[in-house]
Amino acid sequence: MKEFVRITSKENSLIKSIISLQNSSKTRRENNQFVLEGLRLCRDAMYNDYKISTFVVSDTAYDKHKVDVLEIGEKSENLYIVPDTLFKKFSDTVSPQGLLCLCEIPDFQKIPVAKDGNFVALENLSDPSNIGAIARTAEAMGINGIFISRSSCDPFSSKALRASMGALLRIPVIVCDNLVDTLKGHNLRVYASVVNRDATDITKVNFQKGSAALIGNEANGLCEETINYADERITIKMSGKAESLNAAAAASIIIWEMCK
Amino acid sequence: MKEFVRITSKENSLIKSIISLQNSSKTRRENNQFVLEGLRLCRDAMYNDYKISTFVVSDTAYDKHKVDVLEIGEKSENLYIVPDTLFKKFSDTVSPQGLLCLCEIPDFQKIPVAKDGNFVALENLSDPSNIGAIARTAEAMGINGIFISRSSCDPFSSKALRASMGALLRIPVIVCDNLVDTLKGHNLRVYASVVNRDATDITKVNFQKGSAALIGNEANGLCEETINYADERITIKMSGKAESLNAAAAASIIIWEMCK
Repeated sequence: MKEFVRITSKENSLIKSIISLQNSSKTRRENNQFVLEGLRLCRDAMYNDYKISTFVVSDTAYDKHKVDVLEIGEKSENLYIVPDTLFKKFSDTVSPQGLLCLCEIPDFQKIPVAKDGNFVALENLSDPSNIGAIARTAEAMGINGIFISRSSCDPFSSKALRASMGALLRIPVIVCDNLVDTLKGHNLRVYASVVNRDATDITKVNFQKGSAALIGNEANGLCEETINYADERITIKMSGKAESLNAAAAASIIIWEMCK
Repeated sequence: MKEFVRITSKENSLIKSIISLQNSSKTRRENNQFVLEGLRLCRDAMYNDYKISTFVVSDTAYDKHKVDVLEIGEKSENLYIVPDTLFKKFSDTVSPQGLLCLCEIPDFQKIPVAKDGNFVALENLSDPSNIGAIARTAEAMGINGIFISRSSCDPFSSKALRASMGALLRIPVIVCDNLVDTLKGHNLRVYASVVNRDATDITKVNFQKGSAALIGNEANGLCEETINYADERITIKMSGKAESLNAAAAASIIIWEMCK
């Protein structure tokens, strides 16, 4: 059994780096690491082969979740145990469960992309809750993966991970610089979701195998260049008086039509 | 032209009551009032015949949005103008626009319910962002109104109103004690959305005119009693591995199938 090293001071450099990784996507990118909190997310990371460099538990969590703690511990490189009061100091939640992992951000180039799969691709999304909600719907519907433009907010923020209920850890997530190039490089047919009555009504689209539906920024939609470069423009015909849907609502309907 | 009364002290009783109305749904209920902030929401309230008892503007907003300020002022009972620094003290937003209304919560009994309309009904929803997002989708799809159980979170909180982009002010919203009784009282056919493979697949439901789709609590779904009392149980068949959808995502798909 691996040893858990005790930390008691909030001045410890690990504690400081956890806080910094939680607060800054730049720090996460530079260190190639992200933070997960709670039993469920830590287990998701373990079962989905995320490389866990550091695993921190509180005294209470060690006793309360001993079987899980030891199992996650076996898969982690470095193990630490801290007093409950210290855990609260760096936890991102109001009532922490007392389990936290630092995981390596995967090498997106190496993530397998299912041939003939169905994908969603998110461009410039700015709200991590939307990325999380879309991932959750995508997983429920059996989508084969999510492409996310690097210009979007970080899918490895605690807010996105929590909103996804762990789905972001359970389905392939590929962050890339140029969405359309990447999608076409995988021989996917690219559908651009737009608010435009001239685009194809999604109920009329015959989604082929090997499709990717692009969803754009919450306020501005997809970039003009992306729309022009896509294979087909698709739209959700609306009979009401509001001009647009929330990005997560639009994505839900598109994923639904793609997968049903 | 009506006069704007100047307030300069944060100890003024109106300022105190604005803060209290913003922070507490109990205060809103007891005073039968809610708070709206920003030009767009204030205009929505005016155009949708909400009774505006108090309208407060900052010095900057008065100059910058003079035409709108005077128009909203004409429809308001009491008008106040405050220094920008004071507005910031009671504003609910980081960068306030400087316009705020106190509106009367409508008499839900008097809100007309379209015969043969399509409705959504929300039971015990706990996240105001979900209520807002669902209202936005409902408006976009042409839903005729939203019924909300009194046990749900307050649709007149600033969080719900903002997430709805004003949709909650533009479509009929009816808060009621007993959802199913109220829906049946309006002769609506009541569909209960459940996660259960024995329920009718929503793609197979022939939504008649005069339908209401019930959506349950984020974590627990609909109450057993509500499900039993409904006319039909409906479900979203999912091919993925996650067990459930986020309430707003599920509602989007159900509203879409109901209205398309």
